[in-house]
Amino acid sequence: MTTAARPTNAPLPAPAEAPTVLHTVTIDLGARSYPIVIGTGLLDAPSTWAGLPRAASAMVVTNTTVAPLYAARLCAALQPHYPRVLQVVLPDGEDHKDWPTLNLIFDALLGQGCDRKTVLFALGGGVIGDMTGFAAACYMRGVPFVQVPTTLLAQVDSSVGGKTAINHPLGKNMIGAFYQPVRVVCDLATLGTLPEREFNAGLAEVIKYGPIADPGLLDWIEANLARLRARDPAALAHAVRRSCEIKAAVVGQDERESGLRAILNFGHTFGHAIEAGLGYGRWLHGEAVGCGMVMAAHLSHRLGRVSAAYVQRLTRLIEAAGLPTRAPRLADDNAARYLGLMRVDKKAEAGAIRFVVVDELGRADLCPVPDALVAEVIEACCAQPQASAASTV
Amino acid sequence: MTTAARPTNAPLPAPAEAPTVLHTVTIDLGARSYPIVIGTGLLDAPSTWAGLPRAASAMVVTNTTVAPLYAARLCAALQPHYPRVLQVVLPDGEDHKDWPTLNLIFDALLGQGCDRKTVLFALGGGVIGDMTGFAAACYMRGVPFVQVPTTLLAQVDSSVGGKTAINHPLGKNMIGAFYQPVRVVCDLATLGTLPEREFNAGLAEVIKYGPIADPGLLDWIEANLARLRARDPAALAHAVRRSCEIKAAVVGQDERESGLRAILNFGHTFGHAIEAGLGYGRWLHGEAVGCGMVMAAHLSHRLGRVSAAYVQRLTRLIEAAGLPTRAPRLADDNAARYLGLMRVDKKAEAGAIRFVVVDELGRADLCPVPDALVAEVIEACCAQPQASAASTV
Repeated sequence: MTTAARPTNAPLPAPAEAPTVLHTVTIDLGARSYPIVIGTGLLDAPSTWAGLPRAASAMVVTNTTVAPLYAARLCAALQPHYPRVLQVVLPDGEDHKDWPTLNLIFDALLGQGCDRKTVLFALGGGVIGDMTGFAAACYMRGVPFVQVPTTLLAQVDSSVGGKTAINHPLGKNMIGAFYQPVRVVCDLATLGTLPEREFNAGLAEVIKYGPIADPGLLDWIEANLARLRARDPAALAHAVRRSCEIKAAVVGQDERESGLRAILNFGHTFGHAIEAGLGYGRWLHGEAVGCGMVMAAHLSHRLGRVSAAYVQRLTRLIEAAGLPTRAPRLADDNAARYLGLMRVDKKAEAGAIRFVVVDELGRADLCPVPDALVAEVIEACCAQPQASAASTV
Repeated sequence: MTTAARPTNAPLPAPAEAPTVLHTVTIDLGARSYPIVIGTGLLDAPSTWAGLPRAASAMVVTNTTVAPLYAARLCAALQPHYPRVLQVVLPDGEDHKDWPTLNLIFDALLGQGCDRKTVLFALGGGVIGDMTGFAAACYMRGVPFVQVPTTLLAQVDSSVGGKTAINHPLGKNMIGAFYQPVRVVCDLATLGTLPEREFNAGLAEVIKYGPIADPGLLDWIEANLARLRARDPAALAHAVRRSCEIKAAVVGQDERESGLRAILNFGHTFGHAIEAGLGYGRWLHGEAVGCGMVMAAHLSHRLGRVSAAYVQRLTRLIEAAGLPTRAPRLADDNAARYLGLMRVDKKAEAGAIRFVVVDELGRADLCPVPDALVAEVIEACCAQPQASAASTV
């Protein structure tokens, strides 16, 4: 559905607090560099949107969940900058991250006569960001786009790296592009409407940046977890900033994902097996990653890289973040099922399954691991009394 | 339809002549530079395909017209370089330059478990090149691809510039990417199977490079037109080489089509009006461009840039190439209909219609022209005795 912004009978935007920029992180990619602006009250402030590429039209792309909360406010703030501010509202959810839904964006752009300078605004979580970014990469062979992530996961993860994609029936994120936004605006106030479970899932990706890169961040999260879970803006601002900085440092060395970037997948190999084994959507991605990090920590311990105490510490933090730390059993021959799912996940790179492992200094690398050792870790981490995680460390 | 190459009951490839490289043009785009190799007998020679990116799989994308002629031969020549050589055969024609057909490529790649290093080979004309290039740009966010153009138009036009796209029901080439091949191989022998009418349509784009950039090329085409139409390899090699060199020089200065590149559209504004007014497919694109160049030459004359003799000379050459030089009447209020169609074609850039005009030294530029003057040119060029082209110059 495409509509012109601010229909006459729409509710007025909520009165805005004064916009406060708390941090700006610059992603340095030469000619494609862009800033991530982190603060509160940014969405409603016309000043937030100054200095973007000029165009006859802006198109806000959002979904049925986010639109009623924030679309009118964003459109109103864009109005001083663009002669036409349009919006297209997509159905919500990963199920709709597909070609027919992507095509709704193209239908809206072409139906409204949007030219090749049109600026797209991705207002929503990771799915909206991925789809809007891919639409921007392809529309008339490329138009500028701005990320306005409204979930913690999107703010700390998908706003850096330039990965855009849609799913294909035969695989997730199989059709896409590396395409950078011209700006990312993280309004921490939008996290206020995020359901608890989704917020916690986002915390998993914040915690991840500690083990793979920054022991100091891990200390800080432990000390400030209560503030984070209370959604204190200053604490959130620090967490989003450090996450973006670390991801940017990794991505900056490996924009096209040839090697180093894989360390961002700490916990993800186990996590993907959990998601796929239970059926996508049963656990949130961040929940599976949280539990996957516990498993990856166990694996790192068995490889002699971290102490048992470190495994316990990371497990307690993940639990305190409201995330699961005990892996689900997926089948009677549980370890074999996990291994099978992980092999499919990694089939793109033939041979042994490689895992991201860490040490206690925040150094991560990718390491092939024998199946037998992985199977031991799986059995140690899965939910059954006779082989609990605690008894193995 | 996807099939493994060289099924046991397939006919053996035709015995190949010795491969002869006549010219190599390097397209200089920094890290994305690539060579255009022009010669005869290239398709069948394994040596043609040496030095490409290594991969577990090669996927030849072609169509139902080209596949029976050349697919088995290309697959056989690729066999020494790739453990698996696969092919996918698309329905032929511009009507199929759409998402469902593009998706057949993704289905084939994913169905065969092709990884992110897979190399795609576009074997066919411009539609196959555009679709394969766009599939390569998007599959797993980008895999390498090789252009193997088998039409004159594709060899001189679409193999340079990195434009890839599919059509949307609301507009042609609206969804695409700028994405460069790793190599282009123009085997002039494949032009031997091209129907006369399609070959002549390709000549229109060759002729175009004279007026916009190189008076010497125009002289050379006039002197060698009979050799070209007889498909003499040495003459074709020169024509393809100079066309690619000129296009490369223009594109090299303006890869993202911000301005200069528009001069490549000499004759195309009038030509698109003819194609759209008659209904796409009635005239071939090159036929419409041929006639469009006659009209653009008249316009250049009325703007004082070329002599009447130059208009006659270009008209005679286009006619001698077997192309139409008299524009079709599109409606009773013929000029208004042309103007309306040209305005739609250019709606992306609001305001006056701008035309590519030339002088006799081979310099082209983009120039806004008053409707009244354009209308005079249309009436002078359209097929009716009382206002023939000849009587106005």
